[in-house]
Parts: sequence; C-alpha cells; structure tokens
Amino acid sequence: MSPIATVPATLLTPDQLEAELRAIGAERYHDQHPFHHMMRDGKLTRGQLQAWALNRYYYQARIPAKDAYLIARLPTPALRREWRRRILDHDGDDENTGGIARWLKLTEGLGLDRDYVISTRGLLPATRFAVDAYVNFVRDRSLLEAVASCLTELFSPQIIHERVEGMLRNYDFISPDTLAYFTPRLTQAPTDVAFALSYVKEHADTPEKQAQILDTLRFKCDVLWVQLDALYLAYVAPGMIPPGAFVPGP
Amino acid sequence: MSPIATVPATLLTPDQLEAELRAIGAERYHDQHPFHHMMRDGKLTRGQLQAWALNRYYYQARIPAKDAYLIARLPTPALRREWRRRILDHDGDDENTGGIARWLKLTEGLGLDRDYVISTRGLLPATRFAVDAYVNFVRDRSLLEAVASCLTELFSPQIIHERVEGMLRNYDFISPDTLAYFTPRLTQAPTDVAFALSYVKEHADTPEKQAQILDTLRFKCDVLWVQLDALYLAYVAPGMIPPGAFVPGP
Repeated sequence: MSPIATVPATLLTPDQLEAELRAIGAERYHDQHPFHHMMRDGKLTRGQLQAWALNRYYYQARIPAKDAYLIARLPTPALRREWRRRILDHDGDDENTGGIARWLKLTEGLGLDRDYVISTRGLLPATRFAVDAYVNFVRDRSLLEAVASCLTELFSPQIIHERVEGMLRNYDFISPDTLAYFTPRLTQAPTDVAFALSYVKEHADTPEKQAQILDTLRFKCDVLWVQLDALYLAYVAPGMIPPGAFVPGP
Repeated sequence: MSPIATVPATLLTPDQLEAELRAIGAERYHDQHPFHHMMRDGKLTRGQLQAWALNRYYYQARIPAKDAYLIARLPTPALRREWRRRILDHDGDDENTGGIARWLKLTEGLGLDRDYVISTRGLLPATRFAVDAYVNFVRDRSLLEAVASCLTELFSPQIIHERVEGMLRNYDFISPDTLAYFTPRLTQAPTDVAFALSYVKEHADTPEKQAQILDTLRFKCDVLWVQLDALYLAYVAPGMIPPGAFVPGP
C-alpha cells in the first residue's frame, strides 16, 4: 500500500511534468547511492561485484514478466507491438541472445556458477521483495502508472556508462565481452523511454494523475535504491549477510 | 517469485516437522538480529527507537488485511471464527482499543506525531516492500502456506519479553503504559499459534507440502529480518537514510 498522498492543486504543463520527473531522478535515482559510487570508482572487491551481479540477475530475470503484465493490459495492437520489443530484447531468440543471457555472461565472467545464479537461492531477501513489488505494481496499478514505472530509464545511459567505464578501468578480470549486456542497453533504453515519456506527458492530464506519476517514479527509484542498500549492508559495511544469502569466497 | 526449491525425499512425522520449524526459527528469527540485541540491551537512542516504532507500525497496520485475506479463503464458519479473533485483537472495538491503537500509544509515547505515523510517509521503502510481500503471500499462496506464515509467533513471546524488559530498564521516557501493546500479545500469540501449528502438522502430509511449510517459515523470517536490516543500515551504521525516509530530530 502506498503512503497517503497529497495532491497538488494545479495542473502542470507536459514540460513542467517532465521537469518534475527529472528533479526526482536527480535526487533519488541510484546513481546517487554510495554502492554505485564504489563501483564507478573501482572500489568494489570481486566478491562485492559478484554479490551485485547475482542479486541484479533477479531484477533482469523478472523484467519480461513485468512487461508481459503490461502488454496484457494495453488496448491496441499498435501499443502492444511497441511494448513487445522489450520482451524480445530481454529474452532473445535462443539461449545465447537477449539481455538475460548477456547478464549470465557477466555473472559467469565474475566466476559465479550459472545454475546457482538462476536458482536465486543466494539472493538477499530485500532484492526479492523489491523486485516483486515492482512486478506487482505493474500488474495491479492503473495502466498510466504501469507505463510510468519504466521512466527510471531516463537516467540509465549515464549510470551504465559509469559502470562500464569503472569496471573496465579497474578490474583486470573484466573484459568488454563480459560487459556485453550493457552496450545494447545504451540504445534500447532511450528508445523505450521516449515512448513512455510521451505517453505519460499526453495521458497525465489531471493534477491527480500527475501526482500519481510523480509518486510512481519515487516508488521505482525506491525499488532500485533498496537493492543497493541491501548490498551495502550485507557486503560493504557493516557486512551483515542475512541467513541463507550468498557468501563470497575468500 | 520463490527460489527454485529442493524437495526432500522422505515424509517427516508431525513432530519431526515441528522440530525442523523450530530449528529454522533458532537460526533465522529476528531475535538473532543485532538491532534487536541493541534494543534488548538498552543501546538504542530515542531516535532509533522512534524509527523502529514508526516502521513497525506499518507491519501492525497491515496485519488485519493479511488476516482478512486468509479468512476469505477459509472454507468453514468454524475455521473463519477461529481466525476472526485476530482481526478483533488488532482493530479493537473503538478508536482506543486493539493492537493498532496500542501501537500508536507507543509511537506517541516516543514523541512521534500520530498523523505522520499513520500516513506512512516516513517509512523505509524496504519496510513497505517486505510487509507488502507478506500480505501478498497470504493472498496468493496455498491456504496451507498462508496459515503456516504466522508460525513465527512460535518465537514471539521470548522476543516481546526481551523488548519490554530492555526498554523499561533502560529508558526513563518509556512507561509500562506506553508498552501496553505487548502485554496482551503474550497471551494472544500462543493461542493463535497453537491452532496454526496443529493445522500445519495435520495438513502438511506430503514431502512437497512439508518443504513448502519450511520455505514459508524461512520466507516469513526474511520478512521480519529485512525490516531490522533496513533500520540498521539507515539509523545505526553506516547511517544511510534513504531519500524521503524519517530523519530523527536532534
């Protein structure tokens, strides 16, 4: 259940709404998180990178489910075709293509067992709860909120750029091939988000809907932030790994 | 989505099943968490206690929703009557009775504004995701798993005893009246859980169902553990309060 919301009295123009969305991202997107700063600056150990990739796998793996729930609710073939591309991008055409397969290349490149990653047995519980909250949000909320929940992609090219640069510069066990996941995302994300942003700017035409959209972006930033918070507590400081979660090797 | 489970080959006797459940509690129940140890030992500051009570309010507030989903799925008047008592215990007969009203006495005794607490605006996102995961679990899983998810109450009298003792001994701003929430729980929880435990021991009659029950208790322990993890990271060490969450006064 969401917090009790306060609705602004005035209707924003579409461009004002976009500016408000960008202001939320500037404050709350997970490129502001200390765990990301460590990755960018090459300060994470191999075990910490493993924990990140292992947990983030669950997010990647559930994205097509999230998008399928969204497609199920879109009313026209044109809208469904537009959204369908996201599932193709993630699931690929066979076992070796698509975003999830490329993510498994990353976890493999970091020395994690493929079956262990896929089983999600070593996940931090907070990762599971946050990702499931996202999938359920898209399934259960209004279509407008569901579409808006992908707007964090507005900010992803920059964070991907920082991750890739930081990892290639600082870790000799990471090759451009291991990071193959990220390259297509630099072009996919802007295409995806351009559609969602223009949809939201067109359809959020009351103060109530605009407030919902802004709350949606805050919620989605929380989903990403919580995942880095949990990694930080378990694997950086104070290093409290919850019972049953992944323990990096020596 | 749950991790891919491994099902044991053999059927446990009901008493062996209970022993397995108790072993999971001994390892994973949140009385093992450093944040609880600080509370028990009087090491939390007033601001940290405020953050705990504020976040835990959301858990208390959603318990009747969880129980209502469960009642909706029980097949007989006798079973529904048995479970109904839990909603009465939490919601009371008027604004001044019941577990939620008593929890608000605690947050008020700690100096928090009542409307702010009820709004849940200052919640840690991890609290919301964990509690919502619990409510959704009870709504969406099998009835047997839904009933089993309350089995953490097996271990609650001890943790309540430690909390109350620790707080009364160490904080002069806390009175027995402020802690009125906990006294009835010492008798309610054992009554509630005796029914659930005997239901589970009777109905978990295949290895698959027994594995589900054990996984359910692990899941529920995670729900409680994640809440203390998030409090620890934000308000103990390293003190990383997520954007928008409650900030204790000076």
